[in-house]
Amino acid sequence: MKPQDVIRKKRDRGTLTKEEIRFFVRGVTTGEMSDYQSSALLMAIFLNGMNEEERLCLTEEMLRSGEVLNFSDVPKPKVDKHSTGGVGDKTSLIIAPLAAAAGLAVPMISGRGLGHTGGTLDKLEAIPGFRVGLTLAEFRQTLEGVGYAMMGQTKEIAPADKKLYALRDVTSTIECIPLIAASIMSKKLAEGLDGLVLDVKTGAGAFMKSKDDARALAEALVETGRGAGVRTVALITDMNQPLGCAVGNRLEVIECLETLRGRGPRDLTELSLELTAQMLVVGELESEMDEAREVVQKLLATGAGLEKFRESTKAQGGDPRVVDDYNLMLPAAREEDLLSERDGYVAEIEAEAIGVASMLLGAGRRRVEDKIDPSVGVVLNKKTGDEVRQGELLLRIHYNGAERLAEAREMLRDAFQVAKRKPLPQNLIKAVL
Amino acid sequence: MKPQDVIRKKRDRGTLTKEEIRFFVRGVTTGEMSDYQSSALLMAIFLNGMNEEERLCLTEEMLRSGEVLNFSDVPKPKVDKHSTGGVGDKTSLIIAPLAAAAGLAVPMISGRGLGHTGGTLDKLEAIPGFRVGLTLAEFRQTLEGVGYAMMGQTKEIAPADKKLYALRDVTSTIECIPLIAASIMSKKLAEGLDGLVLDVKTGAGAFMKSKDDARALAEALVETGRGAGVRTVALITDMNQPLGCAVGNRLEVIECLETLRGRGPRDLTELSLELTAQMLVVGELESEMDEAREVVQKLLATGAGLEKFRESTKAQGGDPRVVDDYNLMLPAAREEDLLSERDGYVAEIEAEAIGVASMLLGAGRRRVEDKIDPSVGVVLNKKTGDEVRQGELLLRIHYNGAERLAEAREMLRDAFQVAKRKPLPQNLIKAVL
Repeated sequence: MKPQDVIRKKRDRGTLTKEEIRFFVRGVTTGEMSDYQSSALLMAIFLNGMNEEERLCLTEEMLRSGEVLNFSDVPKPKVDKHSTGGVGDKTSLIIAPLAAAAGLAVPMISGRGLGHTGGTLDKLEAIPGFRVGLTLAEFRQTLEGVGYAMMGQTKEIAPADKKLYALRDVTSTIECIPLIAASIMSKKLAEGLDGLVLDVKTGAGAFMKSKDDARALAEALVETGRGAGVRTVALITDMNQPLGCAVGNRLEVIECLETLRGRGPRDLTELSLELTAQMLVVGELESEMDEAREVVQKLLATGAGLEKFRESTKAQGGDPRVVDDYNLMLPAAREEDLLSERDGYVAEIEAEAIGVASMLLGAGRRRVEDKIDPSVGVVLNKKTGDEVRQGELLLRIHYNGAERLAEAREMLRDAFQVAKRKPLPQNLIKAVL
Repeated sequence: MKPQDVIRKKRDRGTLTKEEIRFFVRGVTTGEMSDYQSSALLMAIFLNGMNEEERLCLTEEMLRSGEVLNFSDVPKPKVDKHSTGGVGDKTSLIIAPLAAAAGLAVPMISGRGLGHTGGTLDKLEAIPGFRVGLTLAEFRQTLEGVGYAMMGQTKEIAPADKKLYALRDVTSTIECIPLIAASIMSKKLAEGLDGLVLDVKTGAGAFMKSKDDARALAEALVETGRGAGVRTVALITDMNQPLGCAVGNRLEVIECLETLRGRGPRDLTELSLELTAQMLVVGELESEMDEAREVVQKLLATGAGLEKFRESTKAQGGDPRVVDDYNLMLPAAREEDLLSERDGYVAEIEAEAIGVASMLLGAGRRRVEDKIDPSVGVVLNKKTGDEVRQGELLLRIHYNGAERLAEAREMLRDAFQVAKRKPLPQNLIKAVL
């Protein structure tokens, strides 16, 4: 078999066989498939697509390109949640402790933020001492001891995905459902899961802007997960406005802790509880969603989730006193308020603009190699649908350096639309697959 | 501008601007555009196409990536011919001397054979001493002195094409009309021409198997040439069976010399004369095809073309006595005849199979780095439409080593189809654009 033959077949809208996909992925892993051949094939896949069987096969080959974790000796259902990412999307830090408190084992491998979206690892690192660079032995130990463990992708897990993702990034072949699905699922399936709950974001601040695209991606993810023998559910949820109120790493950790205390924003709390309940069902700890929701509500009310968070922080080297004293995470030096210029209702808060402004303040990365400032960000005081009076607080900016403040402020102001009429309410959860 | 942006635009079926195409081609030339980005863009162009303006712009940028020859001080019309290649296609060696004898200057930059097709340079090198690796100064001197000069592509001419072609070859993005047209025309336009005659082959032995594809390529080539201010004509001609009877380098040189003596095969003679006449018209030495044909006929009859061949051979370091003594080119050591197994008419001679068999004997290259044996090949004794009796000679194999003889023989036998009925005659020249 030659790389050219595989490329030609997909170029001509053919269906790749198991052997051809294996040849491709192994070639990527060993380096026998050159980058220029891989990128030609990626573009052909982007433009001509892949069917369900090809997608599943691509995922499995990418999964097998590296180590697959095996937690079969951990006597609990292994369940994880994955979100396609958005602005203010911090549910992992709420869900994992709640799910662990309920009796699941949650081996969560997460990523870092890029562009307007945040990343779980960056949020965790806002906690002094918190280590996300665990060895696989430490990861297992934490999972067994605490019930959940959080770490970054290692070299050992799905190395083909790492190479292909880097190539897709520079060849404009990112936004392609079969490739996205294989990238996400190869990493998630490497966690050795029994169940997986997917949160596919849709809307202006999401990767998948349209509901159709989000549904297509959700379907591909669910098909792939189930095809690989993992009980998989996907929720399609709103990402037109940021989730919750805080955007920026320290600020988001605080919001998660507040949510685990039962004092979180309504949308963030609702989504976190719903996703956790789904995890209990796919993990077969509960058979009905209603009962699962009750269980999770109770864990929130009793503070069991908060205690798990404390336990996990300690286990991963972080300062557990952070849970009670938020200022052990260094706050930003300065604050500035953005006030409403008119009376009315918040008609729209553009999530992407909020995310980019937050990145400009230093909370996110423009490029992979950028450093981030955990303390900075914004906290919304109003959300879409809220009534607002002239002079009332819309959001508070937390910043250190003022270099890009003006630019960020401008962007934040434009992100808020205040209108005369109250907008129609939007469902946070748009579909369950 | 970033490579990703240009790739994304073509991926999304956009039309690239002059600036974007320039950015791409310059990036390829300087190496600032990485190979993997180039190949992603090439695949996007392959699948989403390019309009006339983009094609012209791509050609001009590839042309400008290197040196453009300037023969404006040569006081003759500068005209060349280019063929898209086939089996037994040796017209360059007949046309160039005839056109030079008629008063044109023919600065012909040619290629080598690959796969089932032959190359002009390989044929010339069958002549002892013949040098195709001229410096640009020698090329100019020969052109001025003889009226035509033959050489290979240099590093200086269209270097972007050289890089892109190598990349296309390994990423299955060869068979793409805008890319083919830009590749051919960037090199031809670098010859500083006033006129160009294109011979676009169609049929089983051609690059463009279907007449529709051949017409589309011919149109793209003509549009590009005319767009660049060069008087351009394209003929679409048959390549279902080999052109002429000889396939293999020495054997083809002999057939060219025979043709220049007025004793060549009918199809080869007809096409060579027609293409030369077209060159006289685009070169504005003649205004009407009928008169141009008469001029060329006369040059053949008087042996003026043969004399030019002799002159050129001498000028480029070859042994001019070859013109009269074919055995100064070493013949193959052995011959074997292939006889017809039945009575009937030759219904088909598969050009590609003849080409591949000839390659197996050593006349061609499987890979670019392969060495060729100038002496070997086949000579057809029958052509499509000819009547044949059982036991009569179909073709003669000229070979040295016997390693792949059996395989070649098998292929040659299968290439000939002898049927009861006489096939309908096919036009050699199918269209003139």
